Amino acid sequence: MTGGLFQRLVAAAGGTWQAYTRHEFVLRLARGDLPEAAFRHYLVQDYRFLLHFARAWGLAVYKSENLAEMRRAHSLVAATLDVEIGLHIDYCRGWGLSEAEIAAEPEALETIAYTRFVLDRGLAGDRLDLEVALAPCIVGYAEIAAERVADPATRQDGNPYREWLAMYAGAEYQSLAQDAAAALDDAFARRGGEGRFPALAATFATAARLEADFWQMGLAAA
Amino acid sequence: MTGGLFQRLVAAAGGTWQAYTRHEFVLRLARGDLPEAAFRHYLVQDYRFLLHFARAWGLAVYKSENLAEMRRAHSLVAATLDVEIGLHIDYCRGWGLSEAEIAAEPEALETIAYTRFVLDRGLAGDRLDLEVALAPCIVGYAEIAAERVADPATRQDGNPYREWLAMYAGAEYQSLAQDAAAALDDAFARRGGEGRFPALAATFATAARLEADFWQMGLAAA
Amino acid sequence: MTGGLFQRLVAAAGGTWQAYTRHEFVLRLARGDLPEAAFRHYLVQDYRFLLHFARAWGLAVYKSENLAEMRRAHSLVAATLDVEIGLHIDYCRGWGLSEAEIAAEPEALETIAYTRFVLDRGLAGDRLDLEVALAPCIVGYAEIAAERVADPATRQDGNPYREWLAMYAGAEYQSLAQDAAAALDDAFARRGGEGRFPALAATFATAARLEADFWQMGLAAA
Amino acid sequence: MTGGLFQRLVAAAGGTWQAYTRHEFVLRLARGDLPEAAFRHYLVQDYRFLLHFARAWGLAVYKSENLAEMRRAHSLVAATLDVEIGLHIDYCRGWGLSEAEIAAEPEALETIAYTRFVLDRGLAGDRLDLEVALAPCIVGYAEIAAERVADPATRQDGNPYREWLAMYAGAEYQSLAQDAAAALDDAFARRGGEGRFPALAATFATAARLEADFWQMGLAAA
Repeated sequence: MTGGLFQRLVAAAGGTWQAYTRHEFVLRLARGDLPEAAFRHYLVQDYRFLLHFARAWGLAVYKSENLAEMRRAHSLVAATLDVEIGLHIDYCRGWGLSEAEIAAEPEALETIAYTRFVLDRGLAGDRLDLEVALAPCIVGYAEIAAERVADPATRQDGNPYREWLAMYAGAEYQSLAQDAAAALDDAFARRGGEGRFPALAATFATAARLEADFWQMGLAAA
Repeated sequence: MTGGLFQRLVAAAGGTWQAYTRHEFVLRLARGDLPEAAFRHYLVQDYRFLLHFARAWGLAVYKSENLAEMRRAHSLVAATLDVEIGLHIDYCRGWGLSEAEIAAEPEALETIAYTRFVLDRGLAGDRLDLEVALAPCIVGYAEIAAERVADPATRQDGNPYREWLAMYAGAEYQSLAQDAAAALDDAFARRGGEGRFPALAATFATAARLEADFWQMGLAAA
Repeated sequence: MTGGLFQRLVAAAGGTWQAYTRHEFVLRLARGDLPEAAFRHYLVQDYRFLLHFARAWGLAVYKSENLAEMRRAHSLVAATLDVEIGLHIDYCRGWGLSEAEIAAEPEALETIAYTRFVLDRGLAGDRLDLEVALAPCIVGYAEIAAERVADPATRQDGNPYREWLAMYAGAEYQSLAQDAAAALDDAFARRGGEGRFPALAATFATAARLEADFWQMGLAAA
Repeated sequence: MTGGLFQRLVAAAGGTWQAYTRHEFVLRLARGDLPEAAFRHYLVQDYRFLLHFARAWGLAVYKSENLAEMRRAHSLVAATLDVEIGLHIDYCRGWGLSEAEIAAEPEALETIAYTRFVLDRGLAGDRLDLEVALAPCIVGYAEIAAERVADPATRQDGNPYREWLAMYAGAEYQSLAQDAAAALDDAFARRGGEGRFPALAATFATAARLEADFWQMGLAAA
């Protein structure tokens, strides 16, 4: 997770960042003692999140200023619709959740808050605002997984959530997150300037707070 | 609250509508025994809500298809920015809340969820989607206040919230709400069709649910 | 080109539709006597058009209400970015236009008018408005090519534009256009209603007029 | 027309700026020998322009990040809907054009191109992009009128277009334009940075070019 802007945004978010990345949900998931009901609720809502995540990158295609930006946004829509959603449904099935059950579950307050906040930032602002609002998710998940995998307290054997950690700590996802951090720097160079930093930092901190609320929603279901 | 479409949307929302319009927050406000801390938290967040409400009607100006639609949306931006926000600040002051305190308070999860949900419906859909997402607020508040004022259990004398009830039960607000219900019928005639009803009903029910969550947020602060 | 709504929109557009689909540019292209300068100017501007076409379908991803809608919009972004733009650059090269020359050419008034009209309809309205604004292009090109290929006045041998006609008259493009017409019917069933028809017809007729202006721009360059 | 960013944008636009601000339409209008048919066509299309101008400022209300930004955008919607459009209709009447005739006239290619370009910049970008796209109109008209009024070649007596010049050269409009230039500086400080300048300059130059096309459309009708 190099990337100058991302690190500055993390620093500006202060304790909000750790409240998200080291949330009890995450720590217990890594130790393997997260209640299954918490994880199942998270999974179902995360499926809903993915639909809006694909919408957000569709919006980014619209908001692109050149072919390279367009192709990057498009590749994230493709990854979500062609790969992630399918994997997610398979994974949910492994946890005893059918596609019909997932689709029947109402969208939680926390899911609505986070996804629509991101979309509104993207529509009210420009593509940099949108990418900053998405960064706690894309880059944050990579940081969370890498940090937990490196933590001796994390249980590897017999941890029912090992697959989840392995996916986000894996090379493929880590590389996608690095690209996202690099894209932030690129967009900040072309569309940024120090004057924008306070507003971007506020967007980032709110998104990180809403991510923490999302974990909390999972825990509360247990 | 006449208005064919509005009544159909209320009917389709089922118990969600009463869970919002007869929420414990409202009933206790009418009886005068709502904890002041609950009301204060509501007031501060409602100020935040108003800012996004003005943004939503600004969006409706953009989404207008003729001058009459534009003028109606514009009059609601004007009412919010020129009148409501000022009244709100005055009213908050009466409850011991300074403008600086209001502005310093972070936006609650429930405020983010409701306001951004409305804006996203308005941007993803058309002006009818936007007006339907706003209807539980605009028309709903009129119904809530009228219903409570007519209820013998409502305390008039010495009720610290009497002014709030009187404002929304008053002729001016009731008339604004009737115009909003009539505008829904007009938009449904020009942009609707039975095929749209299920999606509009889902938008309306979600908005009503998020309004109930907004009351709950107030109560939870007490 | 079956598709109830599309045929109704064509009928409502009256002479505007033929002014577009049987424009002198098209007739001369089919006869093989269109000046090469006209075609080259068209090609360069059509490249610009494709960039905004991809943006429009990115916007449609955002405006989707379910996974099927999202996947369809996404497949059109993919077709444009992964296939069409590459083919277009290759094709331009065959006409002696390098990618650098194409990119250096300023965007013509007619290109701006048509592409931004479509995007504004898509943003101000809903996905049905967007798809109707795009239909003269997607479905219209299939009709134009099929009609010309069936016309005895069309020159097959030695026609420098034969490849262009063959592409749009070919099975693959005709099938894509039929899907687009079917998608209009589907969206009209779910989001339409007779009340919307006049506004949709006005959008369609304006888009067809702007397509005719686009041909005229090509001719004027000769 | 003070305002650092505005002057830099003008300088970057090079000859495009003069091609707009000293267009033959403007010079002949100032000398009083512009054909009346040219002016009438301009007036009718300018009415259409105003409707989209109000939409653009409605969009700016939505895109505002604080109350001051919101109020400024709102005041421009108000000025357009409550004052400008009425004045325009009155003024058209003085030129023998009824409101029905104005409304019946189709929107010209040049009107569509300019207005939708502005709206797309505003939606794809942020509020600074939107204000920059609008600046050639708002600030440019003030510069055009001031320059012509100061020009000895301008005919004051018996010039049928004197009222038009006087309005835009008048203190009220000049002050509105200065506010718009100052708002650009403010937005550039908060949302800008040198990295953005090339893209902003491209937006400004295209908008100025589309304004020149708008004058040309008037001339071509004579």
